[in-house]
Amino acid sequence: MPQISKRGEEMPASPIRRLVPLANEAVRRGLKVYRLNIGQPDLPTPPQAFEALRAIDRKVLEYSPSEGLLSLRKKLCEYYHRFNIDVDVEDIIVTSGGSEAVLFAFMACLDPGDEIIVPEPAYANYMAFAISAGAKIVTIPSSIESGFALPPVEEFEKLITPRTKGILICNPNNPTGYLYSMKEMLQIRDLVKKHDLFLFSDEVYREFCYTGAPYISAFHLPDIEHQVVLIDSVSKRYNECGIRIGALITKNAALRRNVMKFCQARLSPPLLGQLVAEASIDASPEYMLATYQEYVERRNFLVDGINRIPGCYSPIPMGAFYTVASLPVDDADRFCEWCLQEFEYEGATIFMAPASGFYTTPGKGRNEVRLAYVLEKPELAKALKVLEEALAAYAALGHGGKPVAAE
Amino acid sequence: MPQISKRGEEMPASPIRRLVPLANEAVRRGLKVYRLNIGQPDLPTPPQAFEALRAIDRKVLEYSPSEGLLSLRKKLCEYYHRFNIDVDVEDIIVTSGGSEAVLFAFMACLDPGDEIIVPEPAYANYMAFAISAGAKIVTIPSSIESGFALPPVEEFEKLITPRTKGILICNPNNPTGYLYSMKEMLQIRDLVKKHDLFLFSDEVYREFCYTGAPYISAFHLPDIEHQVVLIDSVSKRYNECGIRIGALITKNAALRRNVMKFCQARLSPPLLGQLVAEASIDASPEYMLATYQEYVERRNFLVDGINRIPGCYSPIPMGAFYTVASLPVDDADRFCEWCLQEFEYEGATIFMAPASGFYTTPGKGRNEVRLAYVLEKPELAKALKVLEEALAAYAALGHGGKPVAAE
Repeated sequence: MPQISKRGEEMPASPIRRLVPLANEAVRRGLKVYRLNIGQPDLPTPPQAFEALRAIDRKVLEYSPSEGLLSLRKKLCEYYHRFNIDVDVEDIIVTSGGSEAVLFAFMACLDPGDEIIVPEPAYANYMAFAISAGAKIVTIPSSIESGFALPPVEEFEKLITPRTKGILICNPNNPTGYLYSMKEMLQIRDLVKKHDLFLFSDEVYREFCYTGAPYISAFHLPDIEHQVVLIDSVSKRYNECGIRIGALITKNAALRRNVMKFCQARLSPPLLGQLVAEASIDASPEYMLATYQEYVERRNFLVDGINRIPGCYSPIPMGAFYTVASLPVDDADRFCEWCLQEFEYEGATIFMAPASGFYTTPGKGRNEVRLAYVLEKPELAKALKVLEEALAAYAALGHGGKPVAAE
Repeated sequence: MPQISKRGEEMPASPIRRLVPLANEAVRRGLKVYRLNIGQPDLPTPPQAFEALRAIDRKVLEYSPSEGLLSLRKKLCEYYHRFNIDVDVEDIIVTSGGSEAVLFAFMACLDPGDEIIVPEPAYANYMAFAISAGAKIVTIPSSIESGFALPPVEEFEKLITPRTKGILICNPNNPTGYLYSMKEMLQIRDLVKKHDLFLFSDEVYREFCYTGAPYISAFHLPDIEHQVVLIDSVSKRYNECGIRIGALITKNAALRRNVMKFCQARLSPPLLGQLVAEASIDASPEYMLATYQEYVERRNFLVDGINRIPGCYSPIPMGAFYTVASLPVDDADRFCEWCLQEFEYEGATIFMAPASGFYTTPGKGRNEVRLAYVLEKPELAKALKVLEEALAAYAALGHGGKPVAAE
């Protein structure tokens, strides 16, 4: 049998999705599974999306331009202007989800062996896309004890080598929910400028900032506009992850030409998703506010609940709809598997994403999980109860761990 | 400014899409552009597709499983069984178009520096995906003079090195319309078995075989079933290129596990496209036959028309909906650009894909173009007239070329 690629072997399985077969198995055994593992909102897609689907009146569902439909790109432009993100239609390339935007950004900016610096814990799939591109992610640690704040700028500079091509941030952050301060953003901006780097900025959770402070985009930072590569997606803000529409946005014309080669090779982004995304940008302010308020409520409820369970700790996330919590277990990977395979409480169990997969530093995040608050509060309440019972049962088996001291 | 990747620089722009800006410019100048450059069928998507769209009754357009909806994979299984392709549901991984299936096949099978052998001319985007994966495409020439038949097996064997990991065929072929004979397929099968290679088989034009001979899938070949990686797509057979639904099919469980890591990293294939694809598999036999017959008619019309133009030659393609034709021009790349930029005849011009981009051997295909017969016959007739006039005008400018001798 021919050998499969080492690249694939080396690639970590998604911490978010690799336990899916165990969850499916639990469902087959008749269990209710509370899915906090994945950022799959349960909130409704806006009515404009469904109206757009019903209004489709075409003879052929044909390819769209490789860079995306012009009408969608114009609409996205209007959307960004609301956030004082000053981009033009030609700066926007539509992709198959934010995922493809990350992949193409890496492919077009990085050669094998090139390095990018990413604060960890980080969205696990960045690692997967970097491996696809043969590039190396160098992580700079942030930790739960300090609420996942960025380390001082000197720590970044220590990691810069001749192969460093960029810094990647996700803001608001997946998995931690951290929101970078203006001071942190300006530090990053200075680094990017001083060392002539790309700044990859994943801003797909832009709509979900809970501090009241104005939202800071990488495009707001002065004098690095040709170095910024913005990664975006409509998935989370309009509760339409399945349509697979994202965008790669850059004012760097040479980079756009490079990205377009990868875009043309895959022909076009999904047509139907583009029609839906374009309509969704007209979602009403009431819809957006209701979604926002629901997440605020859920965040408060989940974080409060977690912190009431003995030995558990979660900082208060300031954005997105995730939190990274530490649990009193010796090995959260094993605990998450065990919950799906061997535990049940009143006919239910809980599906969490082990946080170790969001770190590259071995051993980090071993007692942490990422939790997405994508269930309604009554469901979250039950999930918390299941978690509490599971922790007690797991500890009784001798697998308890030392609680992390909260600040 | 930070350097963009050498990988991207090295990547050829799509010969099918790189002239799109020139075509758009011609339209802006008021010209009618006959688009024979791209395999974008003008035929209707089946009614079942639109019915499926209208029937969508969901609250949330959510992620689907990374391997695709089970219901679609079951339906695809039924479809393959009609062709005596004996695959199971678990062998099928749904992708964002055939494009993503090629990319993931390369990523999961090939490491940087690994080689695959591909008969040229070949679908240009294979090169792009190989560059994305850091792999090397080694081409084995077929030529218009011999109707693009495969060279003898000894020629393949000469190209095999310790880095050779597979052979890729596209059957029926894009761009040539060639259909491999059972003898050729068995030769490839023997090679694949003897040298322990993967056989990547792109069969997206399966429905369009015009010889009356039974269709031969790579999965019909004996005793290499764990080495076959089938690339498929619903785009062409149901005239729905825009929905971006394809599949990677393999009975090799280790390979599937590897591919699934790439699938999980990009989360899921497009949901709406999957719903449409699933419904389209129920397209009526009458619909399929009408599409088939229309292509037969167009092929005959286009090929006959090309061969009537002095100095032009096209073999008779036996499958797909393309042909590679040689033109009496010194440089088809330049001629295709010139048609869009500087030529018009009665308010119209023609958009063809220069064939050089389908070859890796420098200088090959220099007087060839790929033509897709995706227009109705009256339109094809006008396009042929425009081509004839353009050739005459181009020759008058001193850019004529020596006609290729037809066999």
